[in-house]
Formats: sequence, C-alpha cells, structure tokens
Amino acid sequence: MKERARVVRADLHAVLAAGFVCHLGLNVDGTVMVIPTNYGATEETLYFHGSVASRSLVNSPDQTVCVTVTHVDGLVLARSVMEHSMNYRSAMIYGVPRLVTDPEEKFDALRVITEQCAPGQWDYARRPNRKELAATSVLALSLDEASVKIRTGPPDDGDTPDAELGLWAGVVPVAPAWGAPVTDPVLPTGFAVPAHVTAMTDR
Amino acid sequence: MKERARVVRADLHAVLAAGFVCHLGLNVDGTVMVIPTNYGATEETLYFHGSVASRSLVNSPDQTVCVTVTHVDGLVLARSVMEHSMNYRSAMIYGVPRLVTDPEEKFDALRVITEQCAPGQWDYARRPNRKELAATSVLALSLDEASVKIRTGPPDDGDTPDAELGLWAGVVPVAPAWGAPVTDPVLPTGFAVPAHVTAMTDR
Repeated sequence: MKERARVVRADLHAVLAAGFVCHLGLNVDGTVMVIPTNYGATEETLYFHGSVASRSLVNSPDQTVCVTVTHVDGLVLARSVMEHSMNYRSAMIYGVPRLVTDPEEKFDALRVITEQCAPGQWDYARRPNRKELAATSVLALSLDEASVKIRTGPPDDGDTPDAELGLWAGVVPVAPAWGAPVTDPVLPTGFAVPAHVTAMTDR
Repeated sequence: MKERARVVRADLHAVLAAGFVCHLGLNVDGTVMVIPTNYGATEETLYFHGSVASRSLVNSPDQTVCVTVTHVDGLVLARSVMEHSMNYRSAMIYGVPRLVTDPEEKFDALRVITEQCAPGQWDYARRPNRKELAATSVLALSLDEASVKIRTGPPDDGDTPDAELGLWAGVVPVAPAWGAPVTDPVLPTGFAVPAHVTAMTDR
C-alpha cells in the first residue's frame, strides 16, 4: 500500500506539472460553481489566486473545494460506439483552502503560479511590489487528499465479438501545441523575443 | 439587450462546438466534486453520460449542477507579473440535469455525444443495441442558463508606466494539435485508417 501511495503521489505531481489551468469547484450561495483558473504546484501545496473565488470563499469560508486538472491525450475509437473513450490524465484535489497571509509565502506563491504558466517570467518581468502584494489574495490547498485517474492505450473491444466486424479501431492522439510568440503591437517592430519565451513554445 | 443576448448565444454555441470535454461540478454527499467528462451539444441542450455522475445524481436528485467548458488560447505575458493573464474562451452552464428516459432521445443523445468527439464515428462504428441503450444513463442539461467569458488580445499594461521598463510583452498562443491515428495493435499491419478518422486530425 505504501508503494502504491508513492506511485499515486508521483502521478499526481506529474499531472500537475504538465499543466497550468485547473477547474475549481466550490459552493457559491448554495450552488456549485466550476471556475477555470491558473494554479501553481509545489511538492505539498497547490496555489491559486483568490480573486476569482474570493467572494464565494468569504461568504462560505472553511468549505471543502475540489480542484480538477485534466489533460486530454487522445480519442479512443472503438468498434462499438459504447466503447468509445478518451485517453487522459486527471487529478482531483479536495481540501479546505487556506488564505495565504504571510507576505513571504504569498510572494513565493505568486512566483510558483507565474512559473507554472510561464517559466522564466518571474526573473524577467516586474515582480509585485508591497502594495500589489497586499491587494492580492492567494489561496493554498494541501495536496494531501488527492486522486489521479489515467487512461492510456488502445480501445477495450479488440478481443470481443465486435472485433469480427472488421472495423478500424485505434487512438487519435491530441496534445497542446505552442505557436510562435506574438509581440504586443505597441512594441517596436523587430523587438527581440527573449530566449525564455521562445523556450516556452518547446514544452 | 436582445442583440447582446443573441451574441452571447452565438458565443456559447461556438465555445461548445470547439470542444468535447467539460468539467461537471456537482454535490456528492455534501461535497463539491468536479468531474471531467465528454459532452455533446445541440442548439438547446447539452448531453452527457450519466454513468460518472449517476450515483451522485441519484443520491441528490434535482440539484443544480455547473458544467464548464474551457479552451486555453494563449499565455498573456505582460511587463508586470500581476498583469499576466490567459487568452481563453469559457462557457458555464447551470441547470438541473434531466435523466433522458425516452429511448429515441437517448439514442440521438448518444449520437450527439459521439459525433462531438469523433465526427463520422456514429455512421462507422457499431451503434448501441437495445440492451446497451437500456443499460446507459444519459443526462440532458438545458442551455438556457449559461454565460461565456472570452479574453483575446495583447497584455493590458502596454500603456502603463510599466511599458517604460522596455521589456518584451505579448502572447504565446496554444491550441490542441492532433497527431497521426495509432491503429489498435491487434489489427493487421497496414489496416487502412478510414477517411473520417484522418479528417479528425485536421480539426
């Protein structure tokens, strides 16, 4: 069981490391709301901006939220419509978000969120000043209660009577592809794109 | 207001048409759960398999759920870390799911879900028989209560004092890219990939 738990933990970190957008589910005035938002993950903690969720979390503090991160890896096309599926990696994290109040932790959390989206930007762009830091709310969610689901491989009906239909079956892979950076039109033509931005497109 | 509502409606259909995975938020024994699942959309209705959500929706029927569909279009890299953002299109739909009981509607809903993921597969693969249809639960969600959020364009700090920092700023676009279909290894080498499957990779 300990071995299995370790494996799941490695899967969790791999799924979180592969993305930067999560879907945050929370209760807003008695109704479930699912909000897409950026996140940053450390070994133990998932950080996200409180802004999107702040009203709700102020109104209903100490509520357990659910954060889901999903990567779609392919369509699984089977012989039978009912066996159609998706290859994917998905992590679900449950917990009561903690409002980050310590300025040092908040500063570091913003670094983690920024670097998760855009590696290298924390060292390149202007970092938050004290006033901006104070005006921003950041939430922390422990990674203690999490589960991971992963599906890989071909369709499941290759050894069923449907295999005799003689139909093609297989997987159509899909993955995010980065395009060439588009320079802000207010900048002069030919303004050089920094190396760390070009590197982002190779992810 | 009517004109605006029409525009939002067109945006909603465009966002739904551009994807096939949603994040379904619902209440499970008092806790919010966010489940990634496939969907299919018609003009008025979003359909999804009930299987993933069935236990929860049986335990807590008549609950309002939230379905969110998100497409990430790019990273918005600003001069200031606090101005970093994402270009995205996101739709949120609220409603009480209706269990589809009419066999004809259920059959058609499965067609809609299948075609949303994999156009052409409904006519190619084996369709559900009466027994499979009876064993499957499908949920319908009205598109009446929905909102759409879209962000496009360059960073917002091109006309702020931060512009004088002389930093590069802009957008790094991202979009799903389809790979070459991978034939089920149990099929003979060289088994031809059908044209409608090859066409899926051009989306």
